[in-house]
Amino acid sequence: MESAPSVKPHVVIVGAGFGGLEAAKKLGKEAVRVTVIDRTNHHLFQPLLYEVATAALSPADIAAPIRGILSDFLNTEVILAEVKSVDVAAQTVNIGDREIAYGYLILATGARHSYFGHDEWEKLAPGLKSLEDAVEIRRRLLMAFEYAETITDEAAKAAAMTFVIIGGGPTGVEMAGAIAEIARYTLEKDFRHIDPASARVVLVEGEQRVLSSFPEDLSLSAVKQLKQLGVEVRTGVHAKNLTDAGLEVGDEFIPCRVKIWAAGNAASFVGKTMGVPVDKAGRVIVNNDLTIPGHSEVQVIGDLASFTHQGDRPLPGVSPVAMQQGRHAVRNIVAMIDGRKPQCFRYWNKGSMATIGRNKAVADLNFIHLSGLPAWIVWLFIHIIFLVGYRNRIAVLIQWAWSYVSFNKGARLITRNFQAETRPPT
Amino acid sequence: MESAPSVKPHVVIVGAGFGGLEAAKKLGKEAVRVTVIDRTNHHLFQPLLYEVATAALSPADIAAPIRGILSDFLNTEVILAEVKSVDVAAQTVNIGDREIAYGYLILATGARHSYFGHDEWEKLAPGLKSLEDAVEIRRRLLMAFEYAETITDEAAKAAAMTFVIIGGGPTGVEMAGAIAEIARYTLEKDFRHIDPASARVVLVEGEQRVLSSFPEDLSLSAVKQLKQLGVEVRTGVHAKNLTDAGLEVGDEFIPCRVKIWAAGNAASFVGKTMGVPVDKAGRVIVNNDLTIPGHSEVQVIGDLASFTHQGDRPLPGVSPVAMQQGRHAVRNIVAMIDGRKPQCFRYWNKGSMATIGRNKAVADLNFIHLSGLPAWIVWLFIHIIFLVGYRNRIAVLIQWAWSYVSFNKGARLITRNFQAETRPPT
Repeated sequence: MESAPSVKPHVVIVGAGFGGLEAAKKLGKEAVRVTVIDRTNHHLFQPLLYEVATAALSPADIAAPIRGILSDFLNTEVILAEVKSVDVAAQTVNIGDREIAYGYLILATGARHSYFGHDEWEKLAPGLKSLEDAVEIRRRLLMAFEYAETITDEAAKAAAMTFVIIGGGPTGVEMAGAIAEIARYTLEKDFRHIDPASARVVLVEGEQRVLSSFPEDLSLSAVKQLKQLGVEVRTGVHAKNLTDAGLEVGDEFIPCRVKIWAAGNAASFVGKTMGVPVDKAGRVIVNNDLTIPGHSEVQVIGDLASFTHQGDRPLPGVSPVAMQQGRHAVRNIVAMIDGRKPQCFRYWNKGSMATIGRNKAVADLNFIHLSGLPAWIVWLFIHIIFLVGYRNRIAVLIQWAWSYVSFNKGARLITRNFQAETRPPT
Repeated sequence: MESAPSVKPHVVIVGAGFGGLEAAKKLGKEAVRVTVIDRTNHHLFQPLLYEVATAALSPADIAAPIRGILSDFLNTEVILAEVKSVDVAAQTVNIGDREIAYGYLILATGARHSYFGHDEWEKLAPGLKSLEDAVEIRRRLLMAFEYAETITDEAAKAAAMTFVIIGGGPTGVEMAGAIAEIARYTLEKDFRHIDPASARVVLVEGEQRVLSSFPEDLSLSAVKQLKQLGVEVRTGVHAKNLTDAGLEVGDEFIPCRVKIWAAGNAASFVGKTMGVPVDKAGRVIVNNDLTIPGHSEVQVIGDLASFTHQGDRPLPGVSPVAMQQGRHAVRNIVAMIDGRKPQCFRYWNKGSMATIGRNKAVADLNFIHLSGLPAWIVWLFIHIIFLVGYRNRIAVLIQWAWSYVSFNKGARLITRNFQAETRPPT
């Protein structure tokens, strides 16, 4: 703290997801000047986004304003802007109307879903990455039941009450379980002309098993638990075509109104603007210390980074990887400021888990594999602890407790956007 | 219950606001068939809408799914649809793609804000009637501070940090107080280039005093409490013109980015489709028993009704009037089914109140006028008791308690609509 403010090194963090925010929190206590740039004003607890999409939680329960989280760090400035490109030679970040110079850069702009070249499918089958996505999926789910209630054509009714989730990773499994639960329990008594419990939920996975990053016994257990909820699981088949009317998968056409995309990731475009090697998902291939080739002042972390120096495939795009990398990037910056070299990153894998429904989950804690109730309790406990912000944690806890005893989900709102609401129908 | 289901009288309720929902809850226990039609899927606790607009509460905290509220009433069906017109001769309600026949009709489609012939002002100064309105206003409020933080032009900065509320009724007073509190307390430490506490909040009222429906001493007290929060109050001046740049009011032009409309009500268009007399706000002029002239099977209640048989002006558009009318309409229907006549309605006015901020409110309880902390405690207590749905009440209580001790507001989310989020910037 001996240097004057004007000569403090300037660290720019792009993206306030798990990795970027973790780095910002650590840098808030260092003798540096920090600028955090994000295109939204909130940090999102993405692992619970499926709960917003399935009406169990409200957007504000799983999101916290970035400014609020970092307001006590007087060395830190937050900018709401979308980064267009990074110029590594000039050491600047372009946010559209101006350039921001950096001494050190932590790039953490994450990923969205990949439609494998079929970008036109995005409108038909939204993915689940932002609050807007979640609210839109919630609207589609609830509207499908409303629509089915009003029509008499049996085929159309069946299509309206068929929900297909494409992609059997944790998000897909969680969505499938949660939709099945809404239909069977929450909406049970809400309609007079349909039986919501007769809704079909189909989970489609291209690989031979769901949760392919988990041990095989847990994949099998997940399928068993999904089937207890009435979810149909199709593995080893790929989405061939998607239309308003339904999904063509393998040799089968599944008529369905609501389709949800939970397959494949495509890294944010910002990585590519640096002119460094990226992998086929668009992720920046980083050195073993998280820096990029030729520019140790630039580190890439989280879903945007392809880190291939540990294990036989790149580290997965999960929050523990991003958070550990965020902390490591800060240690590297502190070292470089002190004239030392950045150090090799090693991910400490504490395990992984996916929830399927009430009392249903799988958890791989390395030393032990859990299924069903024990896994679900571990999942609940960890997610409550890690929810950012005290208020959110309490609010979520109360709502989960209430949902658990009542089988009810309170956030069953169908909302339209402002323009649609205030303008007369055309 | 002795008659077969098919010959039970069919009661149609249009609108599930306070009046319609109250009627539906009472009719759920009667030997009638009930159809509730609403264009949203949720009942909205409108008195707390300003708390969503000012980021204290989430949409789901003040809204409950109509189907969920009424699911236990097996004689009741809910239809999500917008009513286009009522044909009182044919006894049918048109919902666009079909007609619904009724034996008895309770029309409760409410009101929106009136722009006094300047409908083009709606986009510039949204009113606060729906969740979509509230989320849009929240977005504009928060974005104004974000914008001010990024610019250097002092005049533009000042305009971005000036918030004008047009209309000094309870909604206007509540909005003005809540915006002043956000600026002074919640956002206090969030920015580096602006001081949110320097934001101007201007409340404009055309009549000679704010809260003109309240006793004069409470109007004066409200102004005093608003001024303690730094709100500027202008009375006896009308909005002459509204532009992107600001508001022309009396002889003054107030440069401001965010304008909020809280003046005047215009009744829903549905009333006019019946071909019966309406007042200048478009409200249906009802008989003293809530029926319409010539059609005792049709009753109009709540904000859509102009009830002039008590006091020297029509009953105000507040929830106690709507709820008492809803219950009365049900008693009338039960009487008519039994061959008796509908009875004269009398409103029992238990008082009115408006909150201004933390420990600040006014309450007219008829036998006593309260201001400041006592009024605020009464307001808090009554609103918690009346919040529809157990879950909401607990969630709101927790969030209020947390806001009270922390001065924090958790729902500070800037969200865009789905299309804006998923499509690349153009």
